[in-house]
Amino acid sequence: MSLLEGISGPRDLDRFSSEELHILADEIRTFLVENVSRTGGHLGPNLGVVEMTIALHRVFDSPNDPIIFDTGHQSYVHKLLTGRQDFSKLRSRGGLAGYPQRSESSHDVVESSHASSSLSWADGVSRALTRTGRKDRHVVAVVGDGSLTGGMTWEALNNISDDNDRNLVIVVNDNGRSYAPTIGGMARYLNRVRTADSYKTLRQSSAHVSRLFGPIGRAIYRGVRGGTHGFLSRFTNNVALYSNLDIKYLGPVDGHDLDAMEETLRLAKAYGAPVIVHAITDKGRGFEPARRDEADQFHAVGKIDPVTGEPIGSSDAVAWTDVFSEALVAAGDRREDIIAMTAAMLRPTGLQAFAQRFPDRVYDVGIAEQHAVASAAGLAFGGIHPVVAIYATFMNRAFDQVMMDVALHKAGVTFVLDRSGVTGPDGPSHHGIWDLAMLQLVPGIRIAAPRDGERLRELFDEAVTVEDAPTVVRFPKGSVPAALDALERLSDGTDVLYRSGSEDVLIVGIGPMAHLAVDVAERLRAQGIGATVVDPRWAVPIQPAIVELAASHRLVITIEDGIRVGGVGTRVRQVLREAGVSTAVDELGLPDEFIDHATREQILADAGLTAPKIAQDVVSQVLGTRVPVARQPSDDDGWASHEIELRGPSDAGSN
Amino acid sequence: MSLLEGISGPRDLDRFSSEELHILADEIRTFLVENVSRTGGHLGPNLGVVEMTIALHRVFDSPNDPIIFDTGHQSYVHKLLTGRQDFSKLRSRGGLAGYPQRSESSHDVVESSHASSSLSWADGVSRALTRTGRKDRHVVAVVGDGSLTGGMTWEALNNISDDNDRNLVIVVNDNGRSYAPTIGGMARYLNRVRTADSYKTLRQSSAHVSRLFGPIGRAIYRGVRGGTHGFLSRFTNNVALYSNLDIKYLGPVDGHDLDAMEETLRLAKAYGAPVIVHAITDKGRGFEPARRDEADQFHAVGKIDPVTGEPIGSSDAVAWTDVFSEALVAAGDRREDIIAMTAAMLRPTGLQAFAQRFPDRVYDVGIAEQHAVASAAGLAFGGIHPVVAIYATFMNRAFDQVMMDVALHKAGVTFVLDRSGVTGPDGPSHHGIWDLAMLQLVPGIRIAAPRDGERLRELFDEAVTVEDAPTVVRFPKGSVPAALDALERLSDGTDVLYRSGSEDVLIVGIGPMAHLAVDVAERLRAQGIGATVVDPRWAVPIQPAIVELAASHRLVITIEDGIRVGGVGTRVRQVLREAGVSTAVDELGLPDEFIDHATREQILADAGLTAPKIAQDVVSQVLGTRVPVARQPSDDDGWASHEIELRGPSDAGSN
Repeated sequence: MSLLEGISGPRDLDRFSSEELHILADEIRTFLVENVSRTGGHLGPNLGVVEMTIALHRVFDSPNDPIIFDTGHQSYVHKLLTGRQDFSKLRSRGGLAGYPQRSESSHDVVESSHASSSLSWADGVSRALTRTGRKDRHVVAVVGDGSLTGGMTWEALNNISDDNDRNLVIVVNDNGRSYAPTIGGMARYLNRVRTADSYKTLRQSSAHVSRLFGPIGRAIYRGVRGGTHGFLSRFTNNVALYSNLDIKYLGPVDGHDLDAMEETLRLAKAYGAPVIVHAITDKGRGFEPARRDEADQFHAVGKIDPVTGEPIGSSDAVAWTDVFSEALVAAGDRREDIIAMTAAMLRPTGLQAFAQRFPDRVYDVGIAEQHAVASAAGLAFGGIHPVVAIYATFMNRAFDQVMMDVALHKAGVTFVLDRSGVTGPDGPSHHGIWDLAMLQLVPGIRIAAPRDGERLRELFDEAVTVEDAPTVVRFPKGSVPAALDALERLSDGTDVLYRSGSEDVLIVGIGPMAHLAVDVAERLRAQGIGATVVDPRWAVPIQPAIVELAASHRLVITIEDGIRVGGVGTRVRQVLREAGVSTAVDELGLPDEFIDHATREQILADAGLTAPKIAQDVVSQVLGTRVPVARQPSDDDGWASHEIELRGPSDAGSN
Repeated sequence: MSLLEGISGPRDLDRFSSEELHILADEIRTFLVENVSRTGGHLGPNLGVVEMTIALHRVFDSPNDPIIFDTGHQSYVHKLLTGRQDFSKLRSRGGLAGYPQRSESSHDVVESSHASSSLSWADGVSRALTRTGRKDRHVVAVVGDGSLTGGMTWEALNNISDDNDRNLVIVVNDNGRSYAPTIGGMARYLNRVRTADSYKTLRQSSAHVSRLFGPIGRAIYRGVRGGTHGFLSRFTNNVALYSNLDIKYLGPVDGHDLDAMEETLRLAKAYGAPVIVHAITDKGRGFEPARRDEADQFHAVGKIDPVTGEPIGSSDAVAWTDVFSEALVAAGDRREDIIAMTAAMLRPTGLQAFAQRFPDRVYDVGIAEQHAVASAAGLAFGGIHPVVAIYATFMNRAFDQVMMDVALHKAGVTFVLDRSGVTGPDGPSHHGIWDLAMLQLVPGIRIAAPRDGERLRELFDEAVTVEDAPTVVRFPKGSVPAALDALERLSDGTDVLYRSGSEDVLIVGIGPMAHLAVDVAERLRAQGIGATVVDPRWAVPIQPAIVELAASHRLVITIEDGIRVGGVGTRVRQVLREAGVSTAVDELGLPDEFIDHATREQILADAGLTAPKIAQDVVSQVLGTRVPVARQPSDDDGWASHEIELRGPSDAGSN
């Protein structure tokens, strides 16, 4: 039995010798490469925190001392040390989550994968422990240097520095990277520390490295049990990470030096007040293919060859991201005023090709969605058209800025939301299921949802021509489906995708749900019910053609890859009613709940978003549907609506 | 004619002597006190920036050099110097806005009142100017020390420090305050600079004060036309505002010393790269009552006596805020686990009484809504029940944190949203009209909207008992209306407020719109239409009683003090349809647009939210309404719905 297999909880680490701990670290790396290469997952980040996580669990007593991982994708080692060693179904239904999950273990605290929140959590938890008489417990936050570019960490540190009456240890896991190298002044600063001669010399000599500043630091130093420690040495650069906040600082320490990490953490633990431990690590440590990958050091991988790191079983299918990437480059060729922005995700959002072609026309702002959006408004004010590429789930971070900075100022900014809709294995905080409902609240916004690659190209091109309002182009994770050509494009740009003889049901398929809509329509025809399927292309505002068509159908079904509550379907219904169209509307979408990790297909099936289920429900509905009536003129009032006179019972079906 | 009256634009300042500028400053202060005391408005902040704003317009060439005010409530002096001297209808319809407004002047850039965004705007605008061949122009951001507690400023500075190829001047208007004294490590740091002997000595001797750091600073110093300046002197404390970001820094300078301000700004202008000017000012400067007011130094006032500062014409009416304030103290007395949090607005959100009674149970986190919410989740994890009091409009800043940190983790956190709905004179960015639509997207959330003071007390008490989900209590600005007692409280807590003989129309009044709903019902009765009015008290989730009642009525009207798109009304409709109730629903609310400053009454009237208008529309509708039918059993599917068989034409009215 390996050492790793003998560990059922963190306290099993206590009996290990220093030599055994080093063997354990090697075992963990081997385990991670072998297992994650089979399932896919976050490989690079976890390889970088093996020694750090062992040291954390040696020094602190989780879960009495809660350990909070920022973003949580680096929690695999933590899972291995807290009784979770079956990685066979990692990120699949029934298997381990890719992030901490309270239902798996009492050792997990924060489940969300959204960055830069750990210090706020640690601030809250540590204050609560102090307030409730548990000040002897320690709270540990593990935060990457990339997350420090997010403003929440500044807000948290400003507060943490105000209240010394708690045991709070902030471990900065400084690998110089978010997905890609971290940007900004803070990153330059960290790089200077990292490359300082004093750190390099000490590291090369395998000396223990840590550092305490000023009189309080010396007091800690004296306060550590066992007297003075020879490895404490001063550096020549006289700066701390947040000198203007006056947060106590220990480091830098080599995050792969188990003994140094443990010693430093023990110092931090003994301090009795908030303290930063600055650990320098290598993302992808110990796996040569990851180390060689300059782009993101195997941040997140699919199935790979565990030796070469080469992808296994990847298809030649074209990804949505790739289609956008090409469309962006083409737009950049046409127009000099188009620039691209990313919040620390250049490659995942498809900006790399644009960056290579126009290196001075891309801004990576760090993990800082709020700043990305507000500064985009500033760029637009100055005559530039910014394309802000972001994962749909992270857009939630900048709702206020889309509203108050972009829309209020009628700024021409295009948001490109990748990974919208159900994403699958990354769980509740990675699904992009709120963007439609949230963003349609923004006055004047225009939201496009392409159903295939061709539509993505054309809608993106349309979006960047809008100069007096925010535009959104949202598309899902994965490969583009086969092109679904329109039977007819109506004058407002709505595509008619399917028509059968009689006009019983109008199905509005938003974006890729158009394919599902056509499938439903075909099933309905087989049962004698006529359907028309349209893709409005622009989901918001509601296109006039939908109103016209709804008036001549007996039932309207809207299908969106987003939550049903407050979704685009509700807006279709409002617009119909304003226009005096009383055709009933059923809004289909995702339920009002957080959705665990599973495949996209499993999740859509659970939500009833499959063609057989929808068709079955439509059939049972149409049997009772009232007769559609002609559209009546709309009232002037934005909110008022008209009820249509009825013409008698339904004439549909065999009822 | 006064000097001020002779100014039609900033360039008129060029001809003034130093002596005349001092006279002008006095005239402006007199003008502000005289005028703002008549209309109400932001007095303290503007009195603090008189000399700074004069100096800015002397040194920079607005609008070619855009000046961006953070929050914008300190832009009155700017308005006076840019051709806007009619303050008679300040913040009233047809008069000047209380914030910058592009439609008023080309000198205005950012209209939003949400703090901490100016540096992001300046980053974007300065990059755009450089990209488009206008690098000779300068961008100036004026940001308070309070706004620096907001994380967006950190995100922006991290980016600004990365790109020196633009002319960008950041003026930190350091008055030590947000509304109340600024909190956190950064504030302590600023206070140390402010109270350093070197600054005090220089200030007392009326010396010009500014400072340049390091070799680059010396290069600036040498680069300034006219050779060396005797007033440049080193301080003993060797720190800059953001030493870890390596942003160039000039200061501190006395913000009320016109000559020093101007000289320092000229240095900054000549630098040719981003630079911070740290100016120390006094909020309320020159108006003794403001200076004496320790709470917020007349941050924002109603009508006041221009000599004594005493409020004029204020009534004895009880404010919503006061009712909450008392309820919070009472809850604090009952339960030790309740704490209160504010984002730099202790007094405006009604936390002062609680803070006085329980000084160690209040956290002011600075202008940091994101941190407030995420750290509240941490507090809840540790067994505390946080009450986060915030203006509804600022809640937009923390949507992601409510979702991912509080709701995903089933944390018992109560949000108290003051100033929800239409607020009036502060314009588009201060209306709290998005909270209902935005927050109802959060899975598991419960949203209470009290209609009067008594309901606020009881709903707040109910809210804090929920320990597994976020709760929201939202109420408007101003005075509580007379209590509106229920005819009956139904078993789910819904209050029936009005019943007439026949069940024609069910009116669901959300929160204070319940009063309007009763008014509508009375008007309908006068026209022979029967109405039932209910206040669900908990707007979200939809109460079962609404479904039951809707089934027995012929039409449902929902009225909410929030936007209609995606509002609670749409959810009522969805729930009815799920339950097989086909009664038509009209959702009344505010239009999908930004709403300019005006009185609440004017705005509601524009939106058609008056009793005569609603009653008139209902009458015309009911004449065509189909017959209500009995409720049918609901399907298991969350999204599916049933159509009800029709029974023939309406039997209502005289049609």
